[in-house]
Amino acid sequence: MNRYGIGDLFIGQKESFQVVVTEEMMEAFYRITKDENPLHRDPEYAAENGYSQPVAYGMLTASFLSTLAGVYLPGEKSLIQSVELKFVKPVFSGDELTVTGEVTEIHESVRQIVLKTVITNRENVKVLKGIIKIGVRDERE
Amino acid sequence: MNRYGIGDLFIGQKESFQVVVTEEMMEAFYRITKDENPLHRDPEYAAENGYSQPVAYGMLTASFLSTLAGVYLPGEKSLIQSVELKFVKPVFSGDELTVTGEVTEIHESVRQIVLKTVITNRENVKVLKGIIKIGVRDERE
Repeated sequence: MNRYGIGDLFIGQKESFQVVVTEEMMEAFYRITKDENPLHRDPEYAAENGYSQPVAYGMLTASFLSTLAGVYLPGEKSLIQSVELKFVKPVFSGDELTVTGEVTEIHESVRQIVLKTVITNRENVKVLKGIIKIGVRDERE
Repeated sequence: MNRYGIGDLFIGQKESFQVVVTEEMMEAFYRITKDENPLHRDPEYAAENGYSQPVAYGMLTASFLSTLAGVYLPGEKSLIQSVELKFVKPVFSGDELTVTGEVTEIHESVRQIVLKTVITNRENVKVLKGIIKIGVRDERE
């Protein structure tokens, strides 16, 4: 886990990581949310609607931004304040996603950074893009 | 589950539901994301940072918007296109949240609706507010 303070960060700083979306994640997300929408749960229904398999919940893909902020950039001192996300392409179980964040703004007086974020699949197709505003907490030792 | 088509929806239409945030949800969200940030995992660390207990992941609270769209408004035909969310106040395990969405725009030609969403806790304090743009899929029987 990274532990960047507001003074350690710079414009253009980037972090990224990979994650494979699994059936287990889809099931765990269902158990949390009870979102029983058949597009995400029923292969036959998904097929009837033009998808080769159930579509991963968009908010499941978005949940990896929690990891991006809380583990990578800035890491420990992260407190997400807001997100603006577009779900550009569908994600499926088995997809290997690359989650990337880049610092585009630093507002030291209010201890806030802005990340531009992109999530791509194995074919390098963008599936999600967005902006995350993150508070960088003060050191307390 | 609701099954509103684009023609069934109207400006001002509202849906809401309650959900209690649990330790099990926090653990399941951790297992999905591997967001090991101690603010969400370590009671002692949370206390040192001024919180009575670990703070629920913001993106966990946001995940209930999947349910709002996919089960309630519009329900089955939902496909979330984008979200803009502000995390206004911290959420904790044990909090009973009320998740509300209201239709503020309908763009029938592109089969899109816009929801204003608010999540409040038991004290009626807003913890999240936002805007969700949702595609309403065509009927295929």
